[in-house]
Amino acid sequence: MGAGSSPCASCKLLRRRCAKDCIFAPYFPPDDPYKFAIVHKIFGASNVSKMLQELPLDQRPDAVNSMVYEASARMRDPVYGCVGAITFLQNQVSRLEMQLAAAQAEILSFQMQQQAASASFPMTQMNQYDQNLVFLSNADSFNSVDGSPEVEDYCSLWS
Amino acid sequence: MGAGSSPCASCKLLRRRCAKDCIFAPYFPPDDPYKFAIVHKIFGASNVSKMLQELPLDQRPDAVNSMVYEASARMRDPVYGCVGAITFLQNQVSRLEMQLAAAQAEILSFQMQQQAASASFPMTQMNQYDQNLVFLSNADSFNSVDGSPEVEDYCSLWS
Repeated sequence: MGAGSSPCASCKLLRRRCAKDCIFAPYFPPDDPYKFAIVHKIFGASNVSKMLQELPLDQRPDAVNSMVYEASARMRDPVYGCVGAITFLQNQVSRLEMQLAAAQAEILSFQMQQQAASASFPMTQMNQYDQNLVFLSNADSFNSVDGSPEVEDYCSLWS
Repeated sequence: MGAGSSPCASCKLLRRRCAKDCIFAPYFPPDDPYKFAIVHKIFGASNVSKMLQELPLDQRPDAVNSMVYEASARMRDPVYGCVGAITFLQNQVSRLEMQLAAAQAEILSFQMQQQAASASFPMTQMNQYDQNLVFLSNADSFNSVDGSPEVEDYCSLWS
């Protein structure tokens, strides 16, 4: 009877006496017959029993859950089962890795543009400063009739 | 004997006569005994046979391959089997989705910076143009002793 008062779902389905130390009883309660039915259909009660016996007690609940998950997947998709989900996820990972690589390349491009802009910024300032000086210089030239700067004329006189 | 001259790997392991229409023979050749041994250990020959019988002929090769894959995964990881790979891949997808979201947010930030810069560019040009005019205007003022532009003086005379 396992831990309960009625035979576990496994023993009920297999129509056998549910012993006190039944290996299935802790994981297949009588109120959830479908859980055992699907692992029995896919793996077989004998194989499930052997797999559980080979594991320490603390790992058995996870093993049962993963077997139920696998069996459900095989029931839904009799051709690919869990492998269909793995293939789908692997494709998703590949697609995301490509999208991430493209995004990272775009970020790198932006960063290089910013670096180039910040590197040329002082030069631009200097160029603008030079340009202002040219304006000033041209403005100075308005003082002479022939367009040559007066300052240069003075210099030529002093030289 | 299936398609070959010797019993298939399944019939050899199960020690039975390999009939001409053996359901295992096309997928479990005698030179690869391990392939059947693992699906037999995990699913059981009877379940594999039933699962194949429920599928059309053209889907059976894929079904066998996915069962071999699942059985191998369960042999390697008796607790989680294929579900371990699914959990790993799901975590990888979540991590990649987060990284992609962060990268896309960074790209959006760069794009907004660029838009802001291009929107302010004409204003910057105009400001610089104005600045040059100021220089010119200041340069003109050099012509007068008191610093007021001569042009303005003429205008005031003509008005």
